Amino acid sequence: MTQTDAARLTADLIRCPSVTPEEGGALVLLEQVLSEAGFDCTRVDRGGISNLYARWGDKGHARTFGFNGHTDVVPLGDEAAWTMAPFGAEEKDGFMYGRGATDMKSGVAAFAAAAIDFVRQTPPDGAVILTITGDEEADALDGTTALLDYMADAGEAMSVCLVGEPTCPDTMGEMIKIGRRGSMTAWFTVTGVQGHSAYPHRAKNPLPAIARLMDRLASHELDQGTDHFDASTLAVVTIDTGNPATNVIPAQCTSAANIRFNDTHTGAGLTAWLQGEADAVAAEFGVEIEMNVKISGESFLTPPGTLSDLVSSSVEAATGVKPVLSTTGGTSDARFVKNHCPVVEFGLVGRTMHQVDERVEVAQIHQLKEIYGRILRDYFA
Amino acid sequence: MTQTDAARLTADLIRCPSVTPEEGGALVLLEQVLSEAGFDCTRVDRGGISNLYARWGDKGHARTFGFNGHTDVVPLGDEAAWTMAPFGAEEKDGFMYGRGATDMKSGVAAFAAAAIDFVRQTPPDGAVILTITGDEEADALDGTTALLDYMADAGEAMSVCLVGEPTCPDTMGEMIKIGRRGSMTAWFTVTGVQGHSAYPHRAKNPLPAIARLMDRLASHELDQGTDHFDASTLAVVTIDTGNPATNVIPAQCTSAANIRFNDTHTGAGLTAWLQGEADAVAAEFGVEIEMNVKISGESFLTPPGTLSDLVSSSVEAATGVKPVLSTTGGTSDARFVKNHCPVVEFGLVGRTMHQVDERVEVAQIHQLKEIYGRILRDYFA
Repeated sequence: MTQTDAARLTADLIRCPSVTPEEGGALVLLEQVLSEAGFDCTRVDRGGISNLYARWGDKGHARTFGFNGHTDVVPLGDEAAWTMAPFGAEEKDGFMYGRGATDMKSGVAAFAAAAIDFVRQTPPDGAVILTITGDEEADALDGTTALLDYMADAGEAMSVCLVGEPTCPDTMGEMIKIGRRGSMTAWFTVTGVQGHSAYPHRAKNPLPAIARLMDRLASHELDQGTDHFDASTLAVVTIDTGNPATNVIPAQCTSAANIRFNDTHTGAGLTAWLQGEADAVAAEFGVEIEMNVKISGESFLTPPGTLSDLVSSSVEAATGVKPVLSTTGGTSDARFVKNHCPVVEFGLVGRTMHQVDERVEVAQIHQLKEIYGRILRDYFA
Repeated sequence: MTQTDAARLTADLIRCPSVTPEEGGALVLLEQVLSEAGFDCTRVDRGGISNLYARWGDKGHARTFGFNGHTDVVPLGDEAAWTMAPFGAEEKDGFMYGRGATDMKSGVAAFAAAAIDFVRQTPPDGAVILTITGDEEADALDGTTALLDYMADAGEAMSVCLVGEPTCPDTMGEMIKIGRRGSMTAWFTVTGVQGHSAYPHRAKNPLPAIARLMDRLASHELDQGTDHFDASTLAVVTIDTGNPATNVIPAQCTSAANIRFNDTHTGAGLTAWLQGEADAVAAEFGVEIEMNVKISGESFLTPPGTLSDLVSSSVEAATGVKPVLSTTGGTSDARFVKNHCPVVEFGLVGRTMHQVDERVEVAQIHQLKEIYGRILRDYFA
C-alpha cells in the first residue's frame, strides 16, 4: 500500500505563504488530502481566521485520539538575510528550508500523514481527530479555542490529544512536554506630585516608590519549584520615566514585570499578590499605583501516566532515546486543549524556529511520522 | 540734591533685551550712568559674555563694600502668553512688567542708584564696588567668576559683598540668605546581560539592581539639618529602560539622582558615598554600574555676624520686618563670591521670577534702594 510522504506534504505546506492571519492555501491543501483519505472535514473559521477540523471514524467514539497543530507561521524577519527562499521548501545537505519548516508545518504533515496511513492500513475501532489552526503564532483568540468551541457545540470530543509542536532542544526524541508554566504581565503606573528637586518635601516623588516595589517583587521567592516544574520566575522588564530635567521631580513613572509560574500558582492568585504589594508601597509612599494585568496562560500539568507512557515508549522504540518529561518553555495551544482532555506535546528539534533560514532535517520528518504512527497503533491496540 | 530714580533705571534696563548671552545694552547703560557718577568702570568681557566692574573710591581701600548682581535674563517662555510687552517696562496697578523685573534688573537698579546717591551725598572713607554680570542665568562660567578673576589679577578686593537677588518669598524684608546648599547630579548606567523573560537565570537583569540602588539612595538619611541649614535631600529624578517587549529582559537601564546638600557634606564626600553604594549593588547583583557626577556648586555659609547684623538692622529699620536668616533655595553667584569675601543676599519679593508676566511692585524698588542706602551708610558710619 502507498505510504503518504510526510516530507513532500511538508514542502507543499511550506510553499503556502501562511503568515498569520493568512491561510495561504495550507488548510485548503490539508482539507483536500484528508478528505480524500476519508476524513470528515469541517472548516471552522472565526474572526477572519481559518481553522480545520478533521475526524476519521465515528463521532462520539469512546476511543478518540487527537492531534493538534497549526499551519500559520511567524513573519520572515529580515527577509534579505535569508539565503534560501522563505516559501521555497528547497533542500540542501539533508535539510529543507523555509518559514514553518520546524514550527510546525513538518509536525502537521507528519501527524496528517501518519493518521492517513494508519486509518488506511489498520482501520481502528475508534476515531482520529485532527485540529489544525491558522492562529497560533499571533493572538490565538480564534484558533484552537474556536475549534474547541465548535467541538463542544457539535458534541465532538477527543479522549486524549498530542500537540505536534517541536519539543526537542537538540536531539530527536529527547523531550516530551507534559505541561507548561503560566505566563502573565503586570504593568504599573505610579503617580505622585511633580515638583522641584530642591524641595522634595513639597512634591511626592513616584520614583522611590517604583524602585521599592520593583525591588520587592524581584526579591520575592515565588516558590522553589515542584516535582514537575522549575521554580516560578518574575522578571522586571522595564522601568520608565522620560524626565530629562535633573531639577524636576516627575509626576509619574511606569514599569512592567513578566511572571512565568508553575502549578503552585494561578494568574488570579498572583494578581492578588501583586495588588497587595502595590497597595502596600502606595500607602507607604503616599502615591497612587495603578496596575493592569494580562494573563496569557495559566500553568497546567498532565501528570505522568498512560498518555505520557504511550508517547515515551513509542519515541524510545523509534529513536532509541528515552525522552524526559518536561514543563519548560513558553506557551503553546496545549494551554487550551488541557481544558478539553489530557494533552502532551511531542515534536522534532525546534532549534531554528522563528529564525532566518528556518530549516528541518528531512530525515526527522520521516522519523516523526513513524513515531506518530506507532503512537496511534499502540493507543488503539 | 537730585535723587537717582531706581524705578526709572529699572525700566530702562528692562527695555534692554538681555537674554543670556546677549548684553542687550544693559551694561552699556549702567557703565554710562555709573561713570557719570564718578565710578571707575571696566568692562570685563570673556567667552562672548559682557560684565561690568565699577569702583568708586580708592583701589585697595581697607573698607570696601561690594554689590553683586546680573543684568542677563531668562528667555520669555511662552511669548504668546504674556499680557504685557516682555521688554516694555509698562506699569499697571502699581506693578512694572517685563522679563527681569524681579530677577534682577530692579535689584541692580536699586543698588546702583543707592550707591550713586550715597557717594554723591556722603562720600565715604572707603570704596564701593559693583560687580554686574551678563552670565548668571545660563552656565555662569564667564560671569561673576570672570569679574572675580579680573579683580584678583588687578589687585582689587571687596571687604564684604551683598548679592541683590530677590530673596523674599512673600513679604518685603522677610528673608536674608546667608548661605546656600550645594547641588550635584549623579547619572547611573546599569549593564547586565539581555535574555528571555522565561529564562531569567540565563540573563542578568539590570532592573532589580537599579531598583535596589535607587531605593537605597532615596531611603538614606543624609543628615538631619544643621543650625543654619535644612536637612540635605536626594531626589531620584528619572529611571529609564525603553524596553517595549515583555518577553525580553533588557541589557541596560539608566537613572539620575539630584542632591541638595548642606555644610555637613562636600561634593567629593557625596561622590564617594554614591560610588560605594553603586559598587555594593553592582557586586550584589553581578552587574556593571557606571556613574557620572556633576557638582554644580558646593554648599557654603557666611555665619551670622557683623554683615548679616548690618543688613538685618537696615531691613528692619526700613520695613519694620525682622528678616530671618535662611539658606534655602537654589544656587546663585554668591557661591562664587563666598570664595572672595563674606557674602549675604538680600533683595525684594521674587514670586514671579522666570514666569510669564514677570513683574515688580514699583514701591518695592524704591524701598529696596532705601534699604541698600541705609546699609551703605551704616557700613561706613
